[in-house]
Amino acid sequence: MNYYVCLHQEGISSISKLIQKAHANNYNVVATSINANMLPMDPFETDPTYPATVLNAVDWNSKVIFTVSDVDVDSPNAKLREYSKAMLLRDITWAEHLQNNGSLMVRLRGPKNDNLAEIIKTRTKGNWFIHVPITNPEVATFEHRKDATEKDIEEAQQVDPWSWWNELRFAVKHNGKVKVVLELSDSDRPSRETVRRWLGEPIEAIIIPSSLFVLNRSNYYVLHKEWQAIVGHFISVRANIIVSTNANDNAISQYAEYVKKLINDHCDTHTLNNYENMLEIPLQPLCDNLDTYTYEIFETDPVKYKLYQEAIQQVLQDRVSDDEAKRKLTVIMVLGGGRGPLARAVFNAAEITKRKVRVYIIEKNPSAIRTLSNMVKTLWSKKDVHIFSKDMRDFSPPELADVLVSELLGSFGDNELSPECLDGALKLLKSNGISIPCKSTSYINPLMSAVLHNNVCQLTSTVPAFNCGYVVLLKNIYHIDQPQALFEFTHPNRAKDIDNTRHKQLSFTAQKDCVLHGIGGYFDTVLYKNIILSINPLTHTQGMFSWFPMFFPTQPRTIKAGEKISIKFWRCVDPEKVWYEWQVCEPAECERHNVGGMGYNMRL
Amino acid sequence: MNYYVCLHQEGISSISKLIQKAHANNYNVVATSINANMLPMDPFETDPTYPATVLNAVDWNSKVIFTVSDVDVDSPNAKLREYSKAMLLRDITWAEHLQNNGSLMVRLRGPKNDNLAEIIKTRTKGNWFIHVPITNPEVATFEHRKDATEKDIEEAQQVDPWSWWNELRFAVKHNGKVKVVLELSDSDRPSRETVRRWLGEPIEAIIIPSSLFVLNRSNYYVLHKEWQAIVGHFISVRANIIVSTNANDNAISQYAEYVKKLINDHCDTHTLNNYENMLEIPLQPLCDNLDTYTYEIFETDPVKYKLYQEAIQQVLQDRVSDDEAKRKLTVIMVLGGGRGPLARAVFNAAEITKRKVRVYIIEKNPSAIRTLSNMVKTLWSKKDVHIFSKDMRDFSPPELADVLVSELLGSFGDNELSPECLDGALKLLKSNGISIPCKSTSYINPLMSAVLHNNVCQLTSTVPAFNCGYVVLLKNIYHIDQPQALFEFTHPNRAKDIDNTRHKQLSFTAQKDCVLHGIGGYFDTVLYKNIILSINPLTHTQGMFSWFPMFFPTQPRTIKAGEKISIKFWRCVDPEKVWYEWQVCEPAECERHNVGGMGYNMRL
Repeated sequence: MNYYVCLHQEGISSISKLIQKAHANNYNVVATSINANMLPMDPFETDPTYPATVLNAVDWNSKVIFTVSDVDVDSPNAKLREYSKAMLLRDITWAEHLQNNGSLMVRLRGPKNDNLAEIIKTRTKGNWFIHVPITNPEVATFEHRKDATEKDIEEAQQVDPWSWWNELRFAVKHNGKVKVVLELSDSDRPSRETVRRWLGEPIEAIIIPSSLFVLNRSNYYVLHKEWQAIVGHFISVRANIIVSTNANDNAISQYAEYVKKLINDHCDTHTLNNYENMLEIPLQPLCDNLDTYTYEIFETDPVKYKLYQEAIQQVLQDRVSDDEAKRKLTVIMVLGGGRGPLARAVFNAAEITKRKVRVYIIEKNPSAIRTLSNMVKTLWSKKDVHIFSKDMRDFSPPELADVLVSELLGSFGDNELSPECLDGALKLLKSNGISIPCKSTSYINPLMSAVLHNNVCQLTSTVPAFNCGYVVLLKNIYHIDQPQALFEFTHPNRAKDIDNTRHKQLSFTAQKDCVLHGIGGYFDTVLYKNIILSINPLTHTQGMFSWFPMFFPTQPRTIKAGEKISIKFWRCVDPEKVWYEWQVCEPAECERHNVGGMGYNMRL
Repeated sequence: MNYYVCLHQEGISSISKLIQKAHANNYNVVATSINANMLPMDPFETDPTYPATVLNAVDWNSKVIFTVSDVDVDSPNAKLREYSKAMLLRDITWAEHLQNNGSLMVRLRGPKNDNLAEIIKTRTKGNWFIHVPITNPEVATFEHRKDATEKDIEEAQQVDPWSWWNELRFAVKHNGKVKVVLELSDSDRPSRETVRRWLGEPIEAIIIPSSLFVLNRSNYYVLHKEWQAIVGHFISVRANIIVSTNANDNAISQYAEYVKKLINDHCDTHTLNNYENMLEIPLQPLCDNLDTYTYEIFETDPVKYKLYQEAIQQVLQDRVSDDEAKRKLTVIMVLGGGRGPLARAVFNAAEITKRKVRVYIIEKNPSAIRTLSNMVKTLWSKKDVHIFSKDMRDFSPPELADVLVSELLGSFGDNELSPECLDGALKLLKSNGISIPCKSTSYINPLMSAVLHNNVCQLTSTVPAFNCGYVVLLKNIYHIDQPQALFEFTHPNRAKDIDNTRHKQLSFTAQKDCVLHGIGGYFDTVLYKNIILSINPLTHTQGMFSWFPMFFPTQPRTIKAGEKISIKFWRCVDPEKVWYEWQVCEPAECERHNVGGMGYNMRL
């Protein structure tokens, strides 16, 4: 992953020299005032601070974050306000001239930012970095003030700079080019929950003031352990690092070195990082045939098929005693054989337990059948194995099965239609036969994620994006509350009248003020007895990556700490399709999404 | 630029071995039958030819071009036709399974391809490569046939495989995923015009049959000079190379080496290659302010300002004799000073000719003024130079100018509103004053370019794309006929009633059957006397890259050789804006584009 480490210094005399100094000390970006060396400046001053030719266009775009004049465009003083607006607009004009895709940083100084929001919306090129203190900077000042009462301090601690950002974010209409740069402060360490909430925001970078660094025993500048952990959390959601210091600091090279080490330690280097926060349309393996690329990804999961194999071993041992092992045959049907990973698990389990198995592989994808047939001819030529190119619901077996093995599970458990498929395959099973898996449960919880919200908005021009469920590797999110169980399905389902529709309402509580952007979806499944696969964040099976969670978007809504969030969820079924509907009904009744499966449904 | 060199062999026994062999011999892609080693095969045969696991998914996508079964889905024989369709659909299913973004190649065998077109449209993943012979393959057979009469040969030579492709292209509705792979033939070298026309098509690659290679005196396989030139033309429009040979050919390594040398020799390595065929919205420097990035590109043109400087030198020498040089002052106004390149040309010219100049720089962009002011303070502190932050139309000069110097020219000469701006600046000029440039002329011609047409179509969801003019570095185009002069403007224009509207109809003739996709636009301008800047392809100033041509799209229309193409063009003016309208009115009257400036206009 490419992180940048940025040197922030003000009051410098030459931007190009600052870049040289930064490079020499292992920084690849600088942040400094757009009015280098000329503050304060009259807004109507036409005299230049420096010419555009100091750097070339590529460097202006890639190596410099501009900080704007520190003026208050929302001042209650009308004259000051107008002056500030003129200054800021002048800075924007100059920034747009120098950078066609660069970054302009502006500091929030309090809760009122309506004028700033209006001005932010006027700029069409490049990104806005909104500089926000992670905790109320006023708290820090009490250290030096003897007049402050306990009550003053308590009140100041109630002020939440996140809400400054939150209001600005709504005022700029969730513009994806407006991101957060979060400043840490040596005088006030944020709580764990405060940090976790910021991880749901579009964090461009964090600012580490040089005062946060302390000398360790070997005379190196380092961060305290608690700060290391906090910075590490931000690094893990791809936040860049800005080190802020004064122009005479001699330790800048040490800071950079240390920060790079932290990045190395905390950067999440899994191979699927291209998928982070990417919204994907869920697969529909029942109506679409999977391709090589998809099979290949699934087959490389290092954990899933191992657990399947363990489940099959236990089943074989439970159903066939050691004494019977040599003569008693267990008939196993693999429903949805793909390119053979479940069949391989069955053969391995049989070999390890020394049980006799006959395997029927049912697969409806004729292209996968080609590969399976080849495997039967080569790898499995001595096995008792039989391939059928069929939909399991239409399959007439030569004999009934002791065990059905399938992996028809999607990210939400039942969203690849395992209930409907396995119900249709019930006729293949002996009356005492069992299914692996035997139960699956879906889970949901409310999420804050400005990044996912923006990604959904970008789809709205082409699809009914707020009526779709997505599969997504969740990265920049805040779990507003823990997941709770939603729907459950057991297999085999021998009920007389099978009803796979479901409805449930669940209630969650917000621990902090936040924004609800949507609902996370997960599942776990019992393969056999205590062998479980789970993508529920509370119980996630270690190392398994076959399924990313789901995300069901809602329109963004600010939630207050302590408020109850009630969510209604439906699983609907008609003769052609299955679909979900979802609705937030507390703290206020909101729209019901995907009514009638208009945006997203699974075809039977 | 990344070209691939592909080895095409049929009748091979193992795709993975073919890839190994290709790699070992310097090829990075292979082309071979999707049914490796199993032809002919029954369409309902379920037995596999090879499993999907022979290669991984990335290799299937990036290293293999599949050729489909050589069947005729448009055969007049109904049984054969149905059999062929089943075979082709089976191949497509298998290809879609193996490649999610790969390439499937199908050979055209004649003019009738309606069924093929329907089948092509059913495939949703990856590209189609349409394999077309560059000349009628029947001609080649006459070499071995004694019964062929002169008339037979002549008739066969009339058959034009381009028309097979052209009809297919219309039948698949100009789908951008359908591209041409063109096969050369050792028995029939195409004419220059045939080659040139193919350059306007979306050429993915050319196939060089091994029989085209000949041994030179040093015993190396090479191409004849004429074939080198033909292959070179295709390389210059980014066509990849497929070498087609049989499985026992021992010279494949030599072919690859030679082809790579050809690519090296003919590949166009200019630094602007990212802009090839890219449609850009023309700049509007009058109503928008240019940014650093744009100024920087213009300033790096190695030719333009040199010619300006020469023009100014001649003007200075013509207006001030050597005797007068020490005392006679020439007042020069630079209209639109940008970041100073024209002013620099003036100072250089004055120094070289030893003439006295006073320079007024008028510039309306306040950000450019910052840089200019700095230049005046530093570089030009001893010059007689004065900066005015003004629109030239509103500028009241302290004195009148001998010479106006400007570069308000767009790709079409007048499309950055030089007529309107220079008319407005007439009041700045002495009665005997002159303007550099003093004349500009626009040119148009009819173009075939399937690539540009597809790029226009991709914009239609967001803008009225067929009513816009674009600036584009033309690459994959065919000039249907040579450019002709359209509109002319002279400066200064001292006419009493200035009329900058224009209208003209021009007629062109197609030399070959082709498709009209739009109109190319160019200009030349006389700076002074015989010093000219031109982007007219017939007279293009060597090495100058400041202006790309324009492209005015029309709906695609097949034109027959010898047909007349008449184009009407208008320059319209109202108090707020200037715009062009264009219409093809022969061989058939087509729609008039951009009526009222609805899609594209220049704001005054």
